[in-house]
Amino acid sequence: MDTNLNEIDTVRLNDAGDAIEIIDQTLLPEKIEVLSLSDQHDIWHAINLLQVRGAPAIGITAGFALYLAAREIAGEMICDSPDHVTRDLFFEKLREAKDYLNSSRPTAVNLSWALNRVENVATDFAQNNKNCNCDMIKELVELMKNEALDIYNEDIEVCKKIGEYALTLVKKGDGLITHCNAGKLATVRYGTATSVMYLGQERGYDLKIYCDETRPLLQGARLTAFELASSGMDVTLLCDNMSASLMKTGGIKAAFVGCDRVAANGDAANKIGTSMLALAAKRNNIPFYVCAPTSTIDMSTPTGKDIVIEQRDGSEVTDMWYKHPMSPKGIKVYNPAFDVTEADLITGIITENGIFKPGDLPL
Amino acid sequence: MDTNLNEIDTVRLNDAGDAIEIIDQTLLPEKIEVLSLSDQHDIWHAINLLQVRGAPAIGITAGFALYLAAREIAGEMICDSPDHVTRDLFFEKLREAKDYLNSSRPTAVNLSWALNRVENVATDFAQNNKNCNCDMIKELVELMKNEALDIYNEDIEVCKKIGEYALTLVKKGDGLITHCNAGKLATVRYGTATSVMYLGQERGYDLKIYCDETRPLLQGARLTAFELASSGMDVTLLCDNMSASLMKTGGIKAAFVGCDRVAANGDAANKIGTSMLALAAKRNNIPFYVCAPTSTIDMSTPTGKDIVIEQRDGSEVTDMWYKHPMSPKGIKVYNPAFDVTEADLITGIITENGIFKPGDLPL
Repeated sequence: MDTNLNEIDTVRLNDAGDAIEIIDQTLLPEKIEVLSLSDQHDIWHAINLLQVRGAPAIGITAGFALYLAAREIAGEMICDSPDHVTRDLFFEKLREAKDYLNSSRPTAVNLSWALNRVENVATDFAQNNKNCNCDMIKELVELMKNEALDIYNEDIEVCKKIGEYALTLVKKGDGLITHCNAGKLATVRYGTATSVMYLGQERGYDLKIYCDETRPLLQGARLTAFELASSGMDVTLLCDNMSASLMKTGGIKAAFVGCDRVAANGDAANKIGTSMLALAAKRNNIPFYVCAPTSTIDMSTPTGKDIVIEQRDGSEVTDMWYKHPMSPKGIKVYNPAFDVTEADLITGIITENGIFKPGDLPL
Repeated sequence: MDTNLNEIDTVRLNDAGDAIEIIDQTLLPEKIEVLSLSDQHDIWHAINLLQVRGAPAIGITAGFALYLAAREIAGEMICDSPDHVTRDLFFEKLREAKDYLNSSRPTAVNLSWALNRVENVATDFAQNNKNCNCDMIKELVELMKNEALDIYNEDIEVCKKIGEYALTLVKKGDGLITHCNAGKLATVRYGTATSVMYLGQERGYDLKIYCDETRPLLQGARLTAFELASSGMDVTLLCDNMSASLMKTGGIKAAFVGCDRVAANGDAANKIGTSMLALAAKRNNIPFYVCAPTSTIDMSTPTGKDIVIEQRDGSEVTDMWYKHPMSPKGIKVYNPAFDVTEADLITGIITENGIFKPGDLPL
């Protein structure tokens, strides 16, 4: 493995500030290709086709996309028309762009969260500058760019802090296991669950990393094993049903996973199979940590039972095979995308603000 | 699904008694093709290439194969040579055939067990008939045929009895889950873990069956889901990591699995992932039953820790994918074929002689 993904952000604004660069994840692990996109339609498709995926990375992409849309709209403004016409047209087109970008994927909360955050800069500006003219709008575009960059920088900072806290829980030479991809490829760099691994590597911890392949879509095999191995770590791949067997060998000292939502009682929804890894960890007295930016902690959802789980198409389970059909034609399929790991199976929830017991969340 | 596998035995001796017929399992689930084999080399390859697989089915095939070899050797005897020459040559060739057949797969215990059983008929006969002649050897061949047929018939009987006992544990309309293939395709008919499902179907139980796909080789998807759906049952396929999520929906009333070996303390080795299904069942208060012909109970192995687990090639995990590589090149892989489910996770062990607590085995 020659390429070091460490040198490339999963998503970033280019130096000229006129395009985003993303790693095309649909080509992984076969090849690493960076796409440069400036048109909102191209970015919409990149999100929709999963060229960029992972809730934080989608949010960051969307934030940059709305800034780039604002930049384009401002660039097309005809500045000799009356100020109010110019202004109204700008905000109308901006709202259209936001709604359009928001439709690229229906379920990722970070998408609308980031779009709202960048749009709010414009809304606040409009309220504070009732008669803003063409030049002022160009100033606004810069403010929107800064907000999008803040989202990007905060992601790096949050991931790094999570990794710092997590690193206090491991020792040199430890074997760690993870599920799905809560990695660099789901964020800008570091990832959430993988942050401890990247920081450990930087500091000579000599960790042994085990990656669940994560059926049906194999994010663990295609993305996590790939990004960690590309970074030069000692990585071993296993099928999801092998983790209990592996834990009995004594080689695993802790499990670190990401999460999509943490309920108020500490139950955590994450990629399907996470709860079975947690059961195996509990059985083998191995600590099981959920890495969660505080933005994923949702105090308005009382327990895991209140989290709606997306059911996906059965073809993901039946059709992704080589040569022959690997399951009977027309078979019914149970294919939930996520499951809930109950609080009693979780040793700690690691946020950018520290490590918390599931029943004692900091919000 | 048009074909009903119920009408074909997985392996049988044809009516003329001069060839075995096996379902070629390497073609499933794409098509059902029955091979007719009489030559020992063809049968060796059928076992070696997994055209017939599953420990009981391999044993039955081997038993028939040794009878067919004896039949062929006897047919080639030159009966005008002195009796002792004829006799010695027959037994020498028979031993060669046995050793050859025994080399077709190294790990299946039933293979050597069945070969020994059919060979013992010949050994006993030779001891009781010191000066056996050509005609007497032809008589012996018939005895060997009967012994092979006994193994075949006993398998049907054992599976059926296991199913009868298991059926006392389920109610009409129950949802049942199984792992890997402990099905008809691993035996002659009924299977061990699936026997309850076939008998339930015959008696209008209207069961809902859930099959773990069973990574890496997908025996659950390719074989179990196929044979049960072909038989007209209500079958749903799921990835191995989804069973805990499924159990929380309340749709599963019991788990039935096969086993490769049961240790004296009730620990049971079975296809990798079985122990994680058992953890999920325990967590959800769902009974977890191991279906075990008494021949798989090994009182000479004290506990599951004493069972050696076969580690298989990593390419099974990394390479069986469609279009693109689905894992990074050169990645290390953990790929055990089996795992051990500890006795405390097992509700009962169902044999042809009844249902036993794991700590109270009948041997």
